[in-house]
Amino acid sequence: MLLIGIGAGDPRYVTQQAIAALNAADVFFVMEKGAEKDDLVALRREVCERFIEDQSYRIVAVRDPERDRTAAAYASAVDDWRRARAEIWERLIADELGEDGVGAILVWGDPSLYDSTLTIMDSILATGRVRFGVEVIPGISAIAALCARHAIALNRVGEAVHITTGRRLAREGFAPNAPDVVVMLDAHCSFDALRGEPIDIYWGAYLGTPDEILVAGALGEVSDEIQRVRAEARTRKGWIMDTYLLRRQSP
Amino acid sequence: MLLIGIGAGDPRYVTQQAIAALNAADVFFVMEKGAEKDDLVALRREVCERFIEDQSYRIVAVRDPERDRTAAAYASAVDDWRRARAEIWERLIADELGEDGVGAILVWGDPSLYDSTLTIMDSILATGRVRFGVEVIPGISAIAALCARHAIALNRVGEAVHITTGRRLAREGFAPNAPDVVVMLDAHCSFDALRGEPIDIYWGAYLGTPDEILVAGALGEVSDEIQRVRAEARTRKGWIMDTYLLRRQSP
Repeated sequence: MLLIGIGAGDPRYVTQQAIAALNAADVFFVMEKGAEKDDLVALRREVCERFIEDQSYRIVAVRDPERDRTAAAYASAVDDWRRARAEIWERLIADELGEDGVGAILVWGDPSLYDSTLTIMDSILATGRVRFGVEVIPGISAIAALCARHAIALNRVGEAVHITTGRRLAREGFAPNAPDVVVMLDAHCSFDALRGEPIDIYWGAYLGTPDEILVAGALGEVSDEIQRVRAEARTRKGWIMDTYLLRRQSP
Repeated sequence: MLLIGIGAGDPRYVTQQAIAALNAADVFFVMEKGAEKDDLVALRREVCERFIEDQSYRIVAVRDPERDRTAAAYASAVDDWRRARAEIWERLIADELGEDGVGAILVWGDPSLYDSTLTIMDSILATGRVRFGVEVIPGISAIAALCARHAIALNRVGEAVHITTGRRLAREGFAPNAPDVVVMLDAHCSFDALRGEPIDIYWGAYLGTPDEILVAGALGEVSDEIQRVRAEARTRKGWIMDTYLLRRQSP
Protein backbone atom coordinates (compact mmCIF):
# COMPACT_ATOMS: atom_id res chain seq x y z
CA MET A 1 0.00 0.00 0.00
CA LEU A 2 1.39 3.32 -1.07
CA LEU A 3 0.24 6.31 0.98
CA ILE A 4 0.93 9.11 -1.46
CA GLY A 5 1.03 12.69 -0.20
CA ILE A 6 -0.13 14.80 -3.15
CA GLY A 7 0.36 18.15 -1.41
CA ALA A 8 -2.08 20.74 -0.16
CA GLY A 9 -4.23 21.83 -3.08
CA ASP A 10 -1.98 22.71 -5.98
CA PRO A 11 -1.38 19.79 -8.41
CA ARG A 12 2.04 21.37 -8.97
CA TYR A 13 2.90 20.42 -5.36
CA VAL A 14 3.13 16.79 -6.51
CA THR A 15 6.69 15.48 -6.19
CA GLN A 16 8.71 13.34 -8.58
CA GLN A 17 8.51 10.54 -6.04
CA ALA A 18 4.71 10.81 -5.87
CA ILE A 19 4.50 10.64 -9.68
CA ALA A 20 6.60 7.47 -9.66
CA ALA A 21 4.35 6.00 -6.96
CA LEU A 22 1.20 6.98 -8.87
CA ASN A 23 2.55 5.09 -11.87
CA ALA A 24 3.43 2.03 -9.77
CA ALA A 25 -0.07 1.50 -8.38
CA ASP A 26 -2.64 -0.91 -9.81
CA VAL A 27 -5.62 0.22 -7.75
CA PHE A 28 -6.48 3.59 -6.26
CA PHE A 29 -8.71 3.57 -3.23
CA VAL A 30 -10.82 6.71 -2.96
CA MET A 31 -12.99 7.50 0.03
CA GLU A 32 -16.08 9.44 -1.08
CA LYS A 33 -16.85 11.94 1.63
CA GLY A 34 -20.25 13.30 0.58
CA ALA A 35 -21.16 16.37 -1.40
CA GLU A 36 -19.16 18.89 0.59
CA LYS A 37 -15.86 17.29 -0.29
CA ASP A 38 -16.50 16.48 -3.95
CA ASP A 39 -13.96 19.13 -4.90
CA LEU A 40 -11.26 17.16 -3.08
CA VAL A 41 -12.21 13.89 -4.80
CA ALA A 42 -12.14 15.74 -8.13
CA LEU A 43 -8.67 17.05 -7.37
CA ARG A 44 -7.41 13.55 -6.62
CA ARG A 45 -8.85 12.35 -9.94
CA GLU A 46 -7.18 15.26 -11.69
CA VAL A 47 -3.82 14.27 -10.19
CA CYS A 48 -4.31 10.70 -11.45
CA GLU A 49 -5.25 11.86 -14.93
CA ARG A 50 -2.45 14.36 -15.16
CA PHE A 51 0.48 12.31 -13.91
CA ILE A 52 -0.24 8.66 -14.71
CA GLU A 53 0.99 7.56 -18.13
CA ASP A 54 -0.96 4.32 -18.51
CA GLN A 55 -4.57 5.25 -17.79
CA SER A 56 -5.66 1.60 -17.34
CA TYR A 57 -5.52 1.75 -13.54
CA ARG A 58 -8.62 1.00 -11.47
CA ILE A 59 -10.26 3.36 -9.02
CA VAL A 60 -12.19 1.78 -6.18
CA ALA A 61 -14.52 4.26 -4.51
CA VAL A 62 -15.98 3.69 -1.09
CA ARG A 63 -18.43 5.64 1.00
CA ASP A 64 -16.88 7.09 4.14
CA PRO A 65 -18.63 5.89 7.32
CA GLU A 66 -20.55 8.53 9.28
CA ARG A 67 -18.69 10.15 12.14
CA ASP A 68 -20.43 11.30 15.29
CA ARG A 69 -19.35 14.92 15.39
CA THR A 70 -21.65 15.72 18.31
CA ALA A 71 -19.92 13.33 20.71
CA ALA A 72 -18.52 14.93 23.85
CA ALA A 73 -15.63 12.45 23.95
CA TYR A 74 -13.82 13.56 20.81
CA ALA A 75 -11.04 10.97 20.91
CA SER A 76 -13.37 8.00 21.41
CA ALA A 77 -15.76 9.18 18.66
CA VAL A 78 -12.77 9.41 16.34
CA ASP A 79 -11.69 5.94 17.49
CA ASP A 80 -15.10 4.43 16.62
CA TRP A 81 -15.08 6.11 13.26
CA ARG A 82 -11.56 4.93 12.56
CA ARG A 83 -12.50 1.35 13.48
CA ALA A 84 -15.41 1.40 11.03
CA ARG A 85 -13.17 2.90 8.41
CA ALA A 86 -10.41 0.32 9.05
CA GLU A 87 -12.87 -2.55 8.54
CA ILE A 88 -13.90 -1.13 5.19
CA TRP A 89 -10.28 -0.76 4.13
CA GLU A 90 -9.36 -4.23 5.33
CA ARG A 91 -12.08 -5.79 3.19
CA LEU A 92 -11.15 -3.67 0.18
CA ILE A 93 -7.46 -4.49 0.38
CA ALA A 94 -8.23 -8.21 0.74
CA ASP A 95 -10.78 -8.21 -2.11
CA GLU A 96 -9.28 -5.80 -4.61
CA LEU A 97 -5.54 -6.44 -4.47
CA GLY A 98 -3.99 -9.66 -5.72
CA GLU A 99 -1.01 -11.31 -4.07
CA ASP A 100 1.45 -8.88 -5.65
CA GLY A 101 -0.95 -6.01 -6.22
CA VAL A 102 0.00 -2.44 -5.40
CA GLY A 103 -2.74 -0.28 -3.91
CA ALA A 104 -2.52 3.45 -3.38
CA ILE A 105 -4.30 6.07 -1.35
CA LEU A 106 -3.90 9.69 -2.34
CA VAL A 107 -3.57 11.83 0.75
CA TRP A 108 -4.27 15.55 0.74
CA GLY A 109 -1.22 17.46 2.00
CA ASP A 110 1.25 15.28 3.89
CA PRO A 111 0.29 11.82 5.23
CA SER A 112 2.05 12.52 8.55
CA LEU A 113 0.08 15.61 9.52
CA TYR A 114 -3.47 15.42 10.94
CA ASP A 115 -4.42 12.64 8.56
CA SER A 116 -5.85 9.31 9.67
CA THR A 117 -4.73 7.06 6.79
CA LEU A 118 -1.51 5.88 8.43
CA THR A 119 -3.30 5.08 11.69
CA ILE A 120 -5.92 3.11 9.75
CA MET A 121 -3.24 1.06 7.99
CA ASP A 122 -1.57 0.33 11.35
CA SER A 123 -4.85 -0.78 12.88
CA ILE A 124 -5.58 -3.13 9.93
CA LEU A 125 -2.11 -4.65 10.20
CA ALA A 126 -2.57 -5.02 13.98
CA THR A 127 -5.53 -7.40 13.42
CA GLY A 128 -3.16 -9.80 11.64
CA ARG A 129 -5.96 -10.84 9.25
CA VAL A 130 -4.35 -9.27 6.20
CA ARG A 131 -0.67 -8.58 5.54
CA PHE A 132 0.89 -5.90 3.36
CA GLY A 133 3.75 -3.45 3.32
CA VAL A 134 3.21 0.29 3.74
CA GLU A 135 5.28 2.98 2.07
CA VAL A 136 4.70 6.65 2.80
CA ILE A 137 5.43 9.31 0.18
CA PRO A 138 5.70 12.71 1.89
CA GLY A 139 3.79 15.68 0.48
CA ILE A 140 3.72 19.46 0.77
CA SER A 141 1.71 20.06 3.94
CA ALA A 142 -0.88 22.78 4.45
CA ILE A 143 1.61 24.37 6.87
CA ALA A 144 4.38 24.53 4.25
CA ALA A 145 1.87 25.90 1.72
CA LEU A 146 0.61 28.51 4.21
CA CYS A 147 4.13 29.78 4.91
CA ALA A 148 5.14 29.76 1.24
CA ARG A 149 2.05 31.68 0.11
CA HIS A 150 2.57 34.29 2.83
CA ALA A 151 6.35 34.24 2.16
CA ILE A 152 7.07 33.84 5.87
CA ALA A 153 9.23 31.51 7.93
CA LEU A 154 7.37 29.12 10.22
CA ASN A 155 9.84 29.67 13.05
CA ARG A 156 11.71 32.71 14.25
CA VAL A 157 15.51 32.45 14.69
CA GLY A 158 16.28 29.73 17.22
CA GLU A 159 12.66 29.71 18.42
CA ALA A 160 10.21 26.83 18.80
CA VAL A 161 6.87 26.37 17.04
CA HIS A 162 3.76 24.68 18.31
CA ILE A 163 1.28 22.87 16.03
CA THR A 164 -2.14 22.36 17.54
CA THR A 165 -5.87 22.09 16.82
CA GLY A 166 -8.61 24.70 17.13
CA ARG A 167 -10.14 22.63 19.90
CA ARG A 168 -6.92 22.69 21.92
CA LEU A 169 -6.27 26.39 21.31
CA ALA A 170 -9.76 27.18 22.62
CA ARG A 171 -9.20 25.03 25.69
CA GLU A 172 -5.56 25.72 26.49
CA GLY A 173 -5.20 29.30 25.29
CA PHE A 174 -2.00 30.93 24.06
CA ALA A 175 0.27 31.88 26.95
CA PRO A 176 2.34 35.09 26.53
CA ASN A 177 5.59 33.11 26.81
CA ALA A 178 4.42 30.32 24.47
CA PRO A 179 6.08 29.98 21.06
CA ASP A 180 4.34 30.81 17.78
CA VAL A 181 1.49 28.43 17.08
CA VAL A 182 0.04 26.89 13.92
CA VAL A 183 -3.61 25.93 14.24
CA MET A 184 -5.21 23.18 12.17
CA LEU A 185 -8.83 21.96 12.06
CA ASP A 186 -10.37 25.05 13.63
CA ALA A 187 -14.06 25.16 12.71
CA HIS A 188 -14.86 27.83 15.28
CA CYS A 189 -12.39 30.66 14.62
CA SER A 190 -10.82 30.17 18.06
CA PHE A 191 -8.30 32.91 17.24
CA ASP A 192 -11.00 35.53 17.85
CA ALA A 193 -10.75 35.03 21.64
CA LEU A 194 -7.19 36.43 21.39
CA ARG A 195 -8.07 39.56 19.39
CA GLY A 196 -7.19 41.89 22.28
CA GLU A 197 -3.59 40.67 22.39
CA PRO A 198 -0.56 41.85 20.36
CA ILE A 199 -0.59 38.91 17.96
CA ASP A 200 -0.21 38.72 14.18
CA ILE A 201 -2.18 36.13 12.25
CA TYR A 202 -1.32 34.58 8.87
CA TRP A 203 -4.45 32.82 7.67
CA GLY A 204 -5.11 30.80 4.53
CA ALA A 205 -8.03 28.80 3.11
CA TYR A 206 -8.18 26.42 0.12
CA LEU A 207 -4.40 26.79 -0.02
CA GLY A 208 -2.84 26.12 -3.40
CA THR A 209 -6.19 25.99 -5.20
CA PRO A 210 -7.76 28.61 -7.51
CA ASP A 211 -10.09 29.47 -4.58
CA GLU A 212 -7.19 30.27 -2.25
CA ILE A 213 -7.81 33.11 0.21
CA LEU A 214 -5.01 34.73 2.23
CA VAL A 215 -5.38 37.26 5.02
CA ALA A 216 -2.58 38.52 7.29
CA GLY A 217 -2.28 41.27 9.85
CA ALA A 218 -2.69 42.21 13.49
CA LEU A 219 -5.32 39.88 14.94
CA GLY A 220 -7.42 42.72 16.36
CA GLU A 221 -7.55 44.35 12.93
CA VAL A 222 -8.24 41.33 10.70
CA SER A 223 -10.18 38.90 12.91
CA ASP A 224 -13.56 40.19 11.71
CA GLU A 225 -12.45 40.13 8.09
CA ILE A 226 -11.24 36.54 8.34
CA GLN A 227 -14.49 35.42 9.95
CA ARG A 228 -16.50 37.22 7.28
CA VAL A 229 -14.63 35.87 4.24
CA ARG A 230 -14.47 32.42 5.84
CA ALA A 231 -18.25 32.28 6.38
CA GLU A 232 -18.93 33.57 2.86
CA ALA A 233 -16.57 31.06 1.25
CA ARG A 234 -17.91 28.18 3.31
CA THR A 235 -21.48 29.02 2.26
CA ARG A 236 -20.52 29.45 -1.38
CA LYS A 237 -18.48 26.23 -1.70
CA GLY A 238 -20.19 24.08 0.92
CA TRP A 239 -16.91 23.25 2.68
CA ILE A 240 -13.76 24.96 3.85
CA MET A 241 -10.24 23.90 4.74
CA ASP A 242 -8.13 26.53 6.43
CA THR A 243 -5.15 26.91 8.71
CA TYR A 244 -3.27 29.76 10.33
CA LEU A 245 -0.15 30.84 12.20
CA LEU A 246 -0.35 33.05 15.31
CA ARG A 247 2.81 35.00 16.06
CA ARG A 248 3.25 37.31 19.03
CA GLN A 249 4.40 40.75 17.96
CA SER A 250 7.92 41.61 19.09
CA PRO A 251 7.85 44.03 22.03
CA MET B 1 13.98 35.99 -6.50
CA LEU B 2 12.67 32.46 -6.34
CA LEU B 3 13.31 30.63 -3.07
CA ILE B 4 12.97 27.06 -4.21
CA GLY B 5 12.50 24.31 -1.64
CA ILE B 6 14.07 21.22 -3.20
CA GLY B 7 13.17 18.86 -0.35
CA ALA B 8 15.25 17.11 2.26
CA GLY B 9 17.85 15.02 0.49
CA ASP B 10 16.12 12.93 -2.14
CA PRO B 11 16.07 14.58 -5.61
CA ARG B 12 12.73 12.78 -6.09
CA TYR B 13 11.28 15.09 -3.41
CA VAL B 14 11.41 17.91 -5.96
CA THR B 15 7.90 19.11 -6.85
CA GLN B 16 6.44 19.97 -10.24
CA GLN B 17 6.29 23.58 -9.08
CA ALA B 18 9.98 23.54 -8.14
CA ILE B 19 10.87 22.14 -11.58
CA ALA B 20 8.92 24.95 -13.25
CA ALA B 21 10.71 27.48 -11.03
CA LEU B 22 14.12 25.94 -11.77
CA ASN B 23 13.39 26.36 -15.47
CA ALA B 24 12.27 29.97 -15.02
CA ALA B 25 15.49 31.14 -13.36
CA ASP B 26 18.36 32.86 -15.18
CA VAL B 27 20.88 32.80 -12.35
CA PHE B 28 21.33 30.38 -9.47
CA PHE B 29 22.98 31.72 -6.36
CA VAL B 30 24.88 29.05 -4.44
CA MET B 31 26.45 29.65 -1.05
CA GLU B 32 29.57 27.52 -0.70
CA LYS B 33 29.75 26.41 2.90
CA GLY B 34 33.22 24.89 3.15
CA ALA B 35 34.37 21.31 2.80
CA GLU B 36 31.97 19.76 5.29
CA LYS B 37 28.93 20.71 3.25
CA ASP B 38 30.22 19.97 -0.25
CA ASP B 39 27.78 17.08 -0.48
CA LEU B 40 24.89 19.52 -0.15
CA VAL B 41 26.25 21.81 -2.86
CA ALA B 42 26.71 18.75 -5.09
CA LEU B 43 23.11 17.76 -4.50
CA ARG B 44 21.89 21.21 -5.50
CA ARG B 45 23.95 20.99 -8.70
CA GLU B 46 22.51 17.53 -9.38
CA VAL B 47 18.99 18.94 -9.04
CA CYS B 48 19.83 21.69 -11.56
CA GLU B 49 21.33 19.24 -14.03
CA ARG B 50 18.51 16.76 -13.70
CA PHE B 51 15.50 19.03 -13.95
CA ILE B 52 16.50 22.04 -16.04
CA GLU B 53 15.96 21.59 -19.76
CA ASP B 54 18.05 24.45 -21.09
CA GLN B 55 21.44 24.02 -19.42
CA SER B 56 22.59 27.55 -20.34
CA TYR B 57 21.78 29.00 -16.90
CA ARG B 58 24.48 30.67 -14.80
CA ILE B 59 25.55 29.57 -11.35
CA VAL B 60 27.02 32.25 -9.10
CA ALA B 61 28.89 30.77 -6.18
CA VAL B 62 29.77 32.73 -3.10
CA ARG B 63 31.70 31.88 0.04
CA ASP B 64 29.54 31.83 3.16
CA PRO B 65 30.74 34.27 5.84
CA GLU B 66 32.15 32.74 9.00
CA ARG B 67 29.74 32.37 11.87
CA ASP B 68 30.82 32.64 15.48
CA ARG B 69 29.55 29.33 16.81
CA THR B 70 31.27 29.85 20.17
CA ALA B 71 29.28 32.97 21.06
CA ALA B 72 27.28 32.77 24.27
CA ALA B 73 24.55 34.99 22.82
CA TYR B 74 23.27 32.66 20.13
CA ALA B 75 20.63 34.98 18.66
CA SER B 76 22.98 37.97 18.32
CA ALA B 77 25.75 35.83 16.78
CA VAL B 78 23.21 34.59 14.24
CA ASP B 79 22.10 38.19 13.66
CA ASP B 80 25.68 39.31 12.91
CA TRP B 81 26.19 36.41 10.57
CA ARG B 82 22.89 37.07 8.81
CA ARG B 83 23.81 40.73 8.36
CA ALA B 84 27.10 39.78 6.70
CA ARG B 85 25.30 37.27 4.56
CA ALA B 86 22.60 39.78 3.59
CA GLU B 87 25.22 42.28 2.41
CA ILE B 88 26.77 39.65 0.16
CA TRP B 89 23.38 38.75 -1.29
CA GLU B 90 22.41 42.37 -1.79
CA ARG B 91 25.53 43.00 -3.85
CA LEU B 92 25.06 39.80 -5.85
CA ILE B 93 21.44 40.52 -6.67
CA ALA B 94 22.29 44.06 -7.73
CA ASP B 95 25.31 42.97 -9.81
CA GLU B 96 24.19 39.70 -11.35
CA LEU B 97 20.51 40.22 -12.16
CA GLY B 98 19.33 42.57 -14.88
CA GLU B 99 16.18 44.66 -14.63
CA ASP B 100 13.93 41.68 -15.46
CA GLY B 101 16.28 38.91 -14.36
CA VAL B 102 15.05 35.97 -12.34
CA GLY B 103 17.38 34.73 -9.63
CA ALA B 104 16.93 31.54 -7.67
CA ILE B 105 18.20 30.07 -4.45
CA LEU B 106 17.85 26.35 -3.90
CA VAL B 107 16.89 25.66 -0.32
CA TRP B 108 17.43 22.30 1.31
CA GLY B 109 14.13 20.97 2.68
CA ASP B 110 11.45 23.64 3.03
CA PRO B 111 12.30 27.38 2.97
CA SER B 112 9.95 28.04 5.91
CA LEU B 113 11.60 25.71 8.41
CA TYR B 114 14.83 26.60 10.23
CA ASP B 115 16.30 28.18 7.13
CA SER B 116 17.63 31.72 7.01
CA THR B 117 17.13 32.53 3.31
CA LEU B 118 13.72 34.17 3.70
CA THR B 119 14.92 36.31 6.60
CA ILE B 120 17.93 37.39 4.53
CA MET B 121 15.69 38.45 1.64
CA ASP B 122 13.47 40.42 4.04
CA SER B 123 16.48 42.19 5.55
CA ILE B 124 17.81 43.14 2.09
CA LEU B 125 14.42 44.51 1.08
CA ALA B 126 14.20 46.42 4.37
CA THR B 127 17.32 48.46 3.45
CA GLY B 128 15.41 49.82 0.43
CA ARG B 129 18.64 49.88 -1.63
CA VAL B 130 17.54 47.15 -4.02
CA ARG B 131 14.01 46.11 -4.98
CA PHE B 132 12.74 42.71 -6.10
CA GLY B 133 9.83 40.34 -5.65
CA VAL B 134 10.15 37.14 -3.62
CA GLU B 135 8.30 33.93 -4.37
CA VAL B 136 8.60 30.91 -2.10
CA ILE B 137 8.25 27.39 -3.48
CA PRO B 138 7.54 24.98 -0.61
CA GLY B 139 9.55 21.77 -0.31
CA ILE B 140 9.43 18.45 1.53
CA SER B 141 10.81 19.30 4.97
CA ALA B 142 13.16 17.13 7.01
CA ILE B 143 10.22 16.58 9.38
CA ALA B 144 7.95 15.25 6.61
CA ALA B 145 10.83 13.06 5.37
CA LEU B 146 11.52 11.75 8.89
CA CYS B 147 7.88 10.75 9.41
CA ALA B 148 7.56 9.22 5.94
CA ARG B 149 10.72 7.14 6.28
CA HIS B 150 9.61 5.85 9.70
CA ALA B 151 6.02 5.48 8.39
CA ILE B 152 4.66 7.34 11.41
CA ALA B 153 2.26 10.22 11.91
CA LEU B 154 3.77 13.42 13.30
CA ASN B 155 0.82 13.99 15.61
CA ARG B 156 -1.35 11.63 17.61
CA VAL B 157 -5.16 11.89 17.21
CA GLY B 158 -6.27 15.38 18.20
CA GLU B 159 -2.92 16.06 19.90
CA ALA B 160 -0.48 18.92 19.51
CA VAL B 161 3.15 18.75 18.35
CA HIS B 162 6.05 20.93 19.33
CA ILE B 163 8.95 21.74 16.99
CA THR B 164 12.07 22.96 18.74
CA THR B 165 15.87 23.05 18.66
CA GLY B 166 18.40 20.90 20.51
CA ARG B 167 19.50 23.99 22.41
CA ARG B 168 15.95 24.64 23.66
CA LEU B 169 15.30 21.00 24.52
CA ALA B 170 18.46 20.95 26.63
CA ARG B 171 17.45 24.17 28.40
CA GLU B 172 13.71 23.72 28.74
CA GLY B 173 13.43 19.94 29.08
CA PHE B 174 10.44 17.83 28.08
CA ALA B 175 7.65 18.06 30.65
CA PRO B 176 5.57 14.89 31.24
CA ASN B 177 2.40 16.67 30.08
CA ALA B 178 4.07 18.30 27.06
CA PRO B 179 3.07 17.16 23.57
CA ASP B 180 5.33 15.12 21.31
CA VAL B 181 8.35 17.08 20.19
CA VAL B 182 10.40 17.25 17.00
CA VAL B 183 13.97 18.40 17.53
CA MET B 184 16.02 20.11 14.84
CA LEU B 185 19.63 21.32 14.89
CA ASP B 186 20.76 19.21 17.85
CA ALA B 187 24.53 18.88 17.71
CA HIS B 188 24.75 17.54 21.27
CA CYS B 189 22.33 14.59 21.41
CA SER B 190 20.20 16.40 24.00
CA PHE B 191 17.77 13.46 23.94
CA ASP B 192 20.19 11.44 26.05
CA ALA B 193 19.30 13.44 29.18
CA LEU B 194 15.80 11.93 28.89
CA ARG B 195 16.89 8.30 28.56
CA GLY B 196 15.42 7.33 31.93
CA GLU B 197 11.91 8.33 30.89
CA PRO B 198 9.25 6.31 29.02
CA ILE B 199 9.81 8.00 25.67
CA ASP B 200 10.12 6.60 22.14
CA ILE B 201 12.51 8.24 19.69
CA TYR B 202 12.34 8.23 15.90
CA TRP B 203 15.70 9.44 14.66
CA GLY B 204 16.99 10.01 11.14
CA ALA B 205 20.19 11.37 9.58
CA TYR B 206 20.97 12.32 5.95
CA LEU B 207 17.27 11.77 5.29
CA GLY B 208 16.36 10.93 1.73
CA THR B 209 19.99 10.44 0.66
CA PRO B 210 21.85 7.17 -0.04
CA ASP B 211 23.56 7.68 3.35
CA GLU B 212 20.27 7.81 5.25
CA ILE B 213 20.33 6.25 8.73
CA LEU B 214 17.15 5.51 10.69
CA VAL B 215 16.91 4.36 14.30
CA ALA B 216 13.71 4.04 16.32
CA GLY B 217 12.83 2.56 19.70
CA ALA B 218 12.55 3.23 23.39
CA LEU B 219 14.97 6.03 24.23
CA GLY B 220 16.66 4.10 27.03
CA GLU B 221 17.35 1.22 24.65
CA VAL B 222 18.55 3.09 21.54
CA SER B 223 20.16 6.28 22.87
CA ASP B 224 23.64 4.74 22.94
CA GLU B 225 23.21 3.26 19.47
CA ILE B 226 22.10 6.60 18.00
CA GLN B 227 25.06 8.40 19.57
CA ARG B 228 27.44 5.76 18.28
CA VAL B 229 26.18 5.66 14.68
CA ARG B 230 25.88 9.45 14.69
CA ALA B 231 29.50 9.93 15.78
CA GLU B 232 30.75 7.34 13.29
CA ALA B 233 28.82 8.87 10.38
CA ARG B 234 29.89 12.39 11.29
CA THR B 235 33.55 11.34 11.33
CA ARG B 236 33.26 9.39 8.08
CA LYS B 237 31.44 12.10 6.11
CA GLY B 238 32.73 15.23 7.86
CA TRP B 239 29.22 16.59 8.52
CA ILE B 240 25.84 15.40 9.70
CA MET B 241 22.26 16.61 9.42
CA ASP B 242 19.79 14.82 11.64
CA THR B 243 16.43 15.30 13.29
CA TYR B 244 14.18 13.30 15.56
CA LEU B 245 10.74 12.96 17.12
CA LEU B 246 10.30 12.23 20.84
CA ARG B 247 6.98 10.64 21.75
CA ARG B 248 5.92 9.74 25.29
CA GLN B 249 4.84 6.14 25.52
CA SER B 250 1.13 5.69 26.26
CA PRO B 251 0.59 4.73 29.91
